[in-house]
Order: sequence, then C-alpha cells, then structure tokens
Amino acid sequence: MTEKYSAIKNLECSSCNRVYPVNQIRNTCNCGQPLVVRYDLEEVKQLTSPQNIRSRAPNMWRYHELLPVSQSKHVVSLGEGFSPLLPLKNLGLECGLSNLFIKYEGSNVGGTFKARGASCGLSKAKELGAKKVAIATNGNAGEAWAMYASRGSIPITVIMPKDAQKMPQIICNSMGASTYLINGMISDAGKFIEKNKLEEEWFDVSTLKEPYRLEGKKTITFEIIEQLGWTFPDAVLFPTGGGIAIAAAYKAFLELQQLGWVKGKLPRLIAVQAQGCAPLEHAFLAKSPTTDFFHGAHTKASGLRVPKPFCDFMVLEAIYKTQGLALSVSDEEMLEGVRRIGHKEGLFLCPEAGACIAALQTLKERQLIEPHEKIVILGSGSGLKYQDVFVQNELTVLDVSE
Amino acid sequence: MTEKYSAIKNLECSSCNRVYPVNQIRNTCNCGQPLVVRYDLEEVKQLTSPQNIRSRAPNMWRYHELLPVSQSKHVVSLGEGFSPLLPLKNLGLECGLSNLFIKYEGSNVGGTFKARGASCGLSKAKELGAKKVAIATNGNAGEAWAMYASRGSIPITVIMPKDAQKMPQIICNSMGASTYLINGMISDAGKFIEKNKLEEEWFDVSTLKEPYRLEGKKTITFEIIEQLGWTFPDAVLFPTGGGIAIAAAYKAFLELQQLGWVKGKLPRLIAVQAQGCAPLEHAFLAKSPTTDFFHGAHTKASGLRVPKPFCDFMVLEAIYKTQGLALSVSDEEMLEGVRRIGHKEGLFLCPEAGACIAALQTLKERQLIEPHEKIVILGSGSGLKYQDVFVQNELTVLDVSE
Repeated sequence: MTEKYSAIKNLECSSCNRVYPVNQIRNTCNCGQPLVVRYDLEEVKQLTSPQNIRSRAPNMWRYHELLPVSQSKHVVSLGEGFSPLLPLKNLGLECGLSNLFIKYEGSNVGGTFKARGASCGLSKAKELGAKKVAIATNGNAGEAWAMYASRGSIPITVIMPKDAQKMPQIICNSMGASTYLINGMISDAGKFIEKNKLEEEWFDVSTLKEPYRLEGKKTITFEIIEQLGWTFPDAVLFPTGGGIAIAAAYKAFLELQQLGWVKGKLPRLIAVQAQGCAPLEHAFLAKSPTTDFFHGAHTKASGLRVPKPFCDFMVLEAIYKTQGLALSVSDEEMLEGVRRIGHKEGLFLCPEAGACIAALQTLKERQLIEPHEKIVILGSGSGLKYQDVFVQNELTVLDVSE
Repeated sequence: MTEKYSAIKNLECSSCNRVYPVNQIRNTCNCGQPLVVRYDLEEVKQLTSPQNIRSRAPNMWRYHELLPVSQSKHVVSLGEGFSPLLPLKNLGLECGLSNLFIKYEGSNVGGTFKARGASCGLSKAKELGAKKVAIATNGNAGEAWAMYASRGSIPITVIMPKDAQKMPQIICNSMGASTYLINGMISDAGKFIEKNKLEEEWFDVSTLKEPYRLEGKKTITFEIIEQLGWTFPDAVLFPTGGGIAIAAAYKAFLELQQLGWVKGKLPRLIAVQAQGCAPLEHAFLAKSPTTDFFHGAHTKASGLRVPKPFCDFMVLEAIYKTQGLALSVSDEEMLEGVRRIGHKEGLFLCPEAGACIAALQTLKERQLIEPHEKIVILGSGSGLKYQDVFVQNELTVLDVSE
C-alpha cells in the first residue's frame, strides 16, 4: 500500500488551459486568469475509495488524495470540516419541502466556511515555502487566514475596508496578524497588496489570487455527498458573494463523477445574492458569461458585498452547466430568514445564510424547486459575530425588588 | 442483536441515595439535592464496545447507551459534540509542556459546550412529555436551551440578569423563546421560576434542577478519552463556574472504569476560577466539602460568575478523589490567555477558556503539572460572542486617496 497523500498532478489555467508544475509558488496564469488544480484521478482510485474514507477522522482532510497538499506533515489544521448536514423538517413542512437539509458551517473555527479555504491554502503556502502571506478581505476570510497563519507560524498581513465588521478586526489582531484598515473597498486593499508585494515579500492569498483556497472549499460538496450516502441532491443553494463555493462545488461534482463514485444528474447550483449587490443575478438574467461591475453595492451581509467576482465566468459556467440559477433577496428578507430558521429549527445563522432561507419561498412559488426534491442549503456561518447587524428589541425586565 | 438505545436504570439522589424510576418528570430528590442517572453497565457491555462506537456518526449521541434518552426518535440534535481535540505544540513549547491538548468546544451551535447539556436535557424532557420548560441563566446555557427547545418544538421561557451579555439575549429572542431580564442575579431568576412554575406549568431546567443536563456534559470526557485511544490523560483543566462539567467528568471516568474500557489512574481534575468569584478555590484551600457563598462576585467571564455552585459537594468530591485542585486567575490574565493562544495556535477563545491558558503557567511554576504529562484543557467556547469584552486597539488606516 502506497503512502502517497495527494494525487495532485498540475495547475491549469481556467481560461487559456496553460499548464504549470505544482512545486513552485505561483499566483495566477501568465494571462492573468485564475489557476485550478488537476489531479491524477486514476491514481486516486488506486489510493482510496468511499468505503476507505468512511473510517477516517471527521474533518475535511479525509479527502486528502483530492486536496493539493503533498505531505501530511504540512497540513495546518484546527479541526475544520465534516460539519453536520441537518434535516430541516419543521421549516420544510412550513415551506412545503419534504427533503430539506442545511450544511451547518458555523462549527468551523471563526464560525464560517472560510476556515476550509484558509486551512488548505495556508497549508499549501507553507509546503511551498512561503515566508509571509497577505490578504485583501471584507472580514471573514481575512480572519480565517489569520487563524491558520498563526497556527502554521507564518506571518500574515490582513487589509480590510475601514467599515468592515468589528469582530474580524478584533480576531485578526488577537491572532497576531499585522492588521490594517483601508479607506476604500476590498478592491483597493487588493491593489495595495499588488503594489507592495514584491518589496514586502508577500505571497498574495486574496480570493483566487492563489489556486488552493478553492480546493478547500470543494470539501463542503464532498461532505454533503458523502453524508447523503454518495448520492447527489437535486439542488444546492449558496449564499453568493465571490462565488468560489459554487465554482468549487461544480469542480467537486465533476471529480466525483469522473471517479465513478457518484452517478446521476448533477445538482442544480443556485446562487443567492443580496438585492443591493447582485452582479451574478444580472448576468444570469442576461444569459451573459461574465458579470458587469455592480455600482453602489450595499448590503448588511458583508460576505455578499462583492461587486465584480474575480471568477465570475467560472461561477456562471457552473450555474449554466447544471441548469441552476441566480436570484437575490433584500436585507430585510435575509434577517427574516435568520429569524425564521431560529424559530423553526434552533439554528442561529449569519445574514448571508439567512438569504438562502428567504430564497426558498421564492423558488417554491416560482416552481423552481419541487416539493419532494432533495434540497441542501449552505449554512455558510453562524450569526454569533453579527452583534451590530441584529437589532435587539427591548426585553421586559422582571422586578424582584418588592 | 437488541435494538435497545439506552441502558438507563434509575435516578439516584447524589446525597441521600434514594432511588427513583426514570419514566416520570422529576426535578430533585425529596431531600432537595440533585439526582443523578444510573445505568445498567453490564447491559452496556452487551450492547456496545469502543470498537463498535468507533464507526458511529461524529456527534455526542454515539454514546447513546450511556445517555438517558430511551428512544432515538426523541433525540433533539443540532450536530453537537465530537469536537476536535487539538494538540497545542506551539503553546506547549512556550510553557515547557510536551503533551498539551485542547478540547475545542466552539464547534457546537451557540459556540459553547452548553449545547451538549441542552441537547440531552431537552431530548429527555421531550421524551418524558414536558409541555413547557423554563430556565434561569447567566446567558450561554439559556441560549443553548432556547436553540434546542426551538428544534424540539417545546415552548421555553428564559430569564437572565439585566446585565447579561447582549448576544445571548439576541439569540434567545431569535429562537422565539419567551425571554426576560431580571433586576437581580441568576439566583433571583431561579426563585422567580420556582415561585411561578406550578401556575405556568414549567418544567424547571435550571442547573441541576433536572438530572439530564449533566449526562450531556459527560460526553466531553467520553470524547477526550476516545480521541486519546481510550486512555486517560494525566490532568484536565476546566474553566469552572457552576462546575457541572467537572462533576460530569468524574462520573464519566467511573463509568468507563467500571465498564473496563479504560484502565489506569484517574486524571487530576483542575478547576480554574476567576479571582473575582472563586468559591471552589476557597473551599479547596480550606479542605472543605462544600463552598461558602462568594460575596461581591465580579468577573468579565460571565460563565464563571457563580457565587455558590448548587452541586459544590459533587465538584469538590471529584477534585479531592482525583488529587486535583482549584485555583483562580485575574480577568487580565484570562484576556492575556486568549491573546496568547491566538498568537500561538490560531484559536479564538472565550475569556472563560482563556482562564485555563493563564492557569497553565502557574501550575507549571508550582510544579503541579510536569513537563511530559498529558494535559487537556477544556476550551469551553469560542470568543465570537464577546464583542463587548475584547477591547480593540485602534488599527492603522491606510490612505489610498492620493
């Protein structure tokens, strides 16, 4: 029995298909587009199987043959992944959906699915010998990378907009990250890193500026499918800002299909955006392969505030190829979604995930999902960090002084 | 093969040893002291084994034979438990401890270990036919019970002190719980429930007012031992307010020892308290079997603000019988503990858990723990909800306007 940990083969440009070796630090293709990781799937079949994976520890590294880290000793882990897939019977009954599930990602460190990309990306950066990393972020991703950089003892610089939420700022600082605010958008933070990275010797790990974060995200989909007994659901709803999770899901579907581990029709990938920032919905309605920059982007769900996703063409391809769709909901509907799943199922979600709860109603009414279909919602994170977003009604004070 | 789910036998008074049947709703013994659950351990041995448990789903219900719920259909679950046991190599190196681990409980819904007690207690309340439940809380436990009550569709009333943290208030409300503040302490909330419970038809689920929450807490210890390959560590550090987790750990040790599943010396149970509220430390130093009420209790770690633990004699017995101890740290040391594990290991803990990080140094200096001993810290929760406690230094703002 071979001891090989990963079946990684090479990097391939998502646009021009140029191929690069995997043993060197590299951000994007020479053509400027994102690189994706390719594996030797025949080798994967020889190394493992669903039956074999079943007995492994319950974290995302159980799929290590399909992840890019070559040696297990380079894995930087905080127990991420293998989050619960919970049936939503009460909510399903209310919505008229008899096979509704949520993949609850609040169980990861930092309380969001961002931990997966950070664990994978930081591990690979460490394996490739990166000395320092830097990231432009709206908050949650930077926080996750700060956590894994601390765990992996790699210095990190995090730059986020001045109006970013308070908790990610506090947490980055608490991790010992060099944390800065910028009087601009995430795109300005990105430009700042681009401009200074040579001098500062930073490896830029901003969204899709490196190929490995997407691989970590892929494990959400592997887990959903394993938890459903290696079968596909009918549709998956994603709260969608940058959209990497959707691109990653599509890549995961194809890998599992090519391995012969799952058969049948691919699930429809459904992107749920904020009405105040819906570039993918606009592109979808126009049947366009790419997005236009969404001007005046605004939403309380900071994770959904991405006016022009860097990998828009990958996300849209995933949606089109799976007969999926993109739609948007208002901030009020998101918060009502959070309240609704709280009242019915006892979960406290972030507004981004609340958007998917809100979208269920619309999808059902427009008959875009059917009553008996197996539907999975990506519950991308818990609401615990969103103290400033959830307004608390004044509670009654009981008087015991008499 | 029998289908029996639980080997529950009866309830026994922790003080007078009077025995009660398990098929009726009951709070405490007629003598007023807490009841504990007893199992038929011979039956457990016939029903399952460590090898058998290994292949079960990664949540706390994998130990169902040693939990009180008789039928699996009554289990109210949000995926709680089987949290990661993470090695702390960087921090251990700094402290001179080569075998240091943390049980990271931030992965549960609500971000704390309270989920376990609530899942177990609410499930059993449902099984016994409770129509409504009520709880007096400092915040986190009430929040956890509100989540599981919503999931289990049982109406709940939560009463907490007026100065409770903001997030538990927001979350209880978001779960649809009847949530009240009280102009007094947690003990006043308890008295209010006591006074009104008959009229309101409330089943009182406040700490140790029912026997089942402790059983859920027990699973933390089962998991630590399973994750260490069914061996005992040398010592376990607990952030300690009410102390149920310590009483539960001792009960878990004895059950596993009697089953013959683990051999060797019991781990030393170490209670870490806040200097501003340290009744167990005072009792320990005085070699007393019970605590005195700690007047003027104050600490930023709300979970440690319990001036007179209801089950003090059980906690102190667990400490004495295992050659453990109780000590306290200041609020400043706790917050420094949170910062330290953040900088070294990438985890963001609540101040309560930070107290254990702070205590390591003292224990090491006083030679109460040895360099090569296997030490486990209970990381009782994440810091995500503590926005008001962690003061953020002003971050540098980068100017891109020029």
